[in-house]
Amino acid sequence: MSSNESAAGIAHVYRGTFVHATYHTAVEILEDRLLGVDTEGKIAFIGSGKEVDRLSQKWGFEAFAVTQLGQHEFFMPGMVDTHIHASQYSYAGTALDMPLLQWLNMYTFPVEACYKDLEFARNVYTHVVKRTLRNGTTTACYFATIHTDASLLLGQIANDLGQRALVGKVINSYPLVRPVVTPRFAPSCSATLLGHLGEIAQNNDLHIQSHISETKEEVSLVKELFPDYDSYTDVYHRHNLLTDKTVMAHGCHLTDGELKLFRETGASIAHCPNSNISLCSGMLDVRRVLNHKVKLGLGTDVAGGYSPSMLDAVRRTLDTSKALTIQDTQYHTLTFEEVFRLATLGGSQALSLDENTGNFEVGKDFDALRVNTDAAGGPIDLINHGEGPKVESNLLASSGDDRNIVEVYVAGKRVVPFVERP
Amino acid sequence: MSSNESAAGIAHVYRGTFVHATYHTAVEILEDRLLGVDTEGKIAFIGSGKEVDRLSQKWGFEAFAVTQLGQHEFFMPGMVDTHIHASQYSYAGTALDMPLLQWLNMYTFPVEACYKDLEFARNVYTHVVKRTLRNGTTTACYFATIHTDASLLLGQIANDLGQRALVGKVINSYPLVRPVVTPRFAPSCSATLLGHLGEIAQNNDLHIQSHISETKEEVSLVKELFPDYDSYTDVYHRHNLLTDKTVMAHGCHLTDGELKLFRETGASIAHCPNSNISLCSGMLDVRRVLNHKVKLGLGTDVAGGYSPSMLDAVRRTLDTSKALTIQDTQYHTLTFEEVFRLATLGGSQALSLDENTGNFEVGKDFDALRVNTDAAGGPIDLINHGEGPKVESNLLASSGDDRNIVEVYVAGKRVVPFVERP
Ligand SMILES: [Zn+2]
Ligand SMILES: [Zn+2]
Repeated sequence: MSSNESAAGIAHVYRGTFVHATYHTAVEILEDRLLGVDTEGKIAFIGSGKEVDRLSQKWGFEAFAVTQLGQHEFFMPGMVDTHIHASQYSYAGTALDMPLLQWLNMYTFPVEACYKDLEFARNVYTHVVKRTLRNGTTTACYFATIHTDASLLLGQIANDLGQRALVGKVINSYPLVRPVVTPRFAPSCSATLLGHLGEIAQNNDLHIQSHISETKEEVSLVKELFPDYDSYTDVYHRHNLLTDKTVMAHGCHLTDGELKLFRETGASIAHCPNSNISLCSGMLDVRRVLNHKVKLGLGTDVAGGYSPSMLDAVRRTLDTSKALTIQDTQYHTLTFEEVFRLATLGGSQALSLDENTGNFEVGKDFDALRVNTDAAGGPIDLINHGEGPKVESNLLASSGDDRNIVEVYVAGKRVVPFVERP
Repeated sequence: MSSNESAAGIAHVYRGTFVHATYHTAVEILEDRLLGVDTEGKIAFIGSGKEVDRLSQKWGFEAFAVTQLGQHEFFMPGMVDTHIHASQYSYAGTALDMPLLQWLNMYTFPVEACYKDLEFARNVYTHVVKRTLRNGTTTACYFATIHTDASLLLGQIANDLGQRALVGKVINSYPLVRPVVTPRFAPSCSATLLGHLGEIAQNNDLHIQSHISETKEEVSLVKELFPDYDSYTDVYHRHNLLTDKTVMAHGCHLTDGELKLFRETGASIAHCPNSNISLCSGMLDVRRVLNHKVKLGLGTDVAGGYSPSMLDAVRRTLDTSKALTIQDTQYHTLTFEEVFRLATLGGSQALSLDENTGNFEVGKDFDALRVNTDAAGGPIDLINHGEGPKVESNLLASSGDDRNIVEVYVAGKRVVPFVERP
């Protein structure tokens, strides 16, 4: 096995610019790097492009087999959608102006019933997995419906198309897909049911996802339904549903005390700004959450949010932070770099998957987007053509779309462009 | 000439769904209509698809020559960008988090100086006209720079590529392009200069464009610089710069008295929500402006706004209205239909061009977008395939992009896809 640190051989080597977040730096731009992926899909080494000869000897690859990125290309980590309702994708974007409760009655409840039909489910779930993959979502934390067969099917589709996923109710039978205990939200659950779910999660060391504190009305409702609890967060906490594998969507109206409970338990928040604005639910003060050192990722919350794209989640996160700045000029606005981190490494931390994914570190899986800001027919005009990776990663965030995401890798395997099977 | 009402012959006839705004209805969906465009690019007739035989006899066209729209296609009016800085497009989207004054010093002022170089100008202006056209902007009201040659060139490029445009400083020498008197904003002008510009506009019956009340700081500055005036609006008004051919960008912080002055003079507001959020300038209460019966259109304000797409302006207008709803639950949120009207007919009214464009009425120019919500490789998944034009026009607004705008017409001439010339 000579000098290889890894038991697996090298499957692919890429040379070019890598843009990612680390635990210490919101955005780190690594120019002219060589990154090797082993046959198990893990990052085996990251070195300087100038060391290609030394590295090719050490790792046993041919220098001519290196994939060289183009002038306007870079790799960034795959994005992590920490909250998305796969079952709601069939009506995403079709109801732009309806309040939450009306919207749930009009769309969510009737459509969810259709998922007892497996062909209906297969159609929608295939679309949502493909659509999010091509938009750069390498990891998705999905809500499905109460239908076991359809939820299993979602897990199978994600696995087959190569997306890393957490799926409500799915049994852990695929390498990329894990189950997640999924109460809809406290108002729809009895204390007994919550306690039961907490027990299941604890006994099986499972992920947990739910909603919390999305609207003020919901907070009042929980107060009425659970009068003996200190807070909305306390309802989940006292049933063992706040763990370091818990992700709660929204949290717009959490108190400092509740955030403290999140911090202590290691539970995280999925910030879904498109949904919060679209349904007029509220504006999460992300800075306050970060100051409390609570883990936070971004979510599209399809179809409360109309866009399945995590680039949209990045833009709407910045918008919300700027809206808070308009209300209070002393507000410490989020930077683009901070939001880039939330969309990648932050999301993987929120889902407790950052040992495996979220950025480019040796030993992690290679979950990556090959970005070309100059893609033919794409939405970006590179007018000066000397923009450089810092400006071009900004351009992707502000103006890019799936046309700029020319390849997507999950665990080293290229999953976009799709290979149509016979 | 037989029974034709128009002196010009019929050049094209389209059959299918037409979605547009009227003076009485925010969104009117006309299914199975026949629309004829004459050789001068004007809408000659609109009739029922069932009357194809009668209409073809009356207007002298062959029924087989009718262009039939596909199942998921419809025509909508071209969109009107009432405020866009063509000269700032070279750095659109590259500075996501910088306050207004820093941003002006860092980008705007140094880059504007480059426009004395005509080749630089030709490159940027060609990109911005093409980019906005393919995003469905059939009419644009452009700011350029102080360089006369470069501004003339912008007018020429817009005309050659077939975009209807108002261009600051350009002499009126192209059929699609008109000049517009363009003080940057009051703080950069002396009272003498403003008076002079007002006189020029009045004597030549010209359009006028400028900025007003974008940020609170700017309002204070104007108060200091023009202590003898009642308000920011009064500064323009007393120099004859508020007319029914005036469009003022932003207006976030106008008082009721100022809006009354807008109403009385017929001046209009270009609402630029992407810019206002991106630069943390403020949030225009569009409902209040409409209640004052002041004309209002939408603008991208590139590069204060990072997106050149009017579909983005539609989304951000809804977002801003929803952000105001979050702050005041009694707020009368704008509907999708109202915003659709603002992006089309509203914009043409704001620019006093609605006699010629803005919707589908006999006698107006055919400025239109052929939309295909099911465009191959596009961003929309039509999952049920029985969505219908109401839902599909919603889908375009929420999830569509230039890929769904398969053809663009200005004054009857197809200008997108571009025909590359030798
Ligand atoms: Zn949700
Ligand atoms: Zn402007």
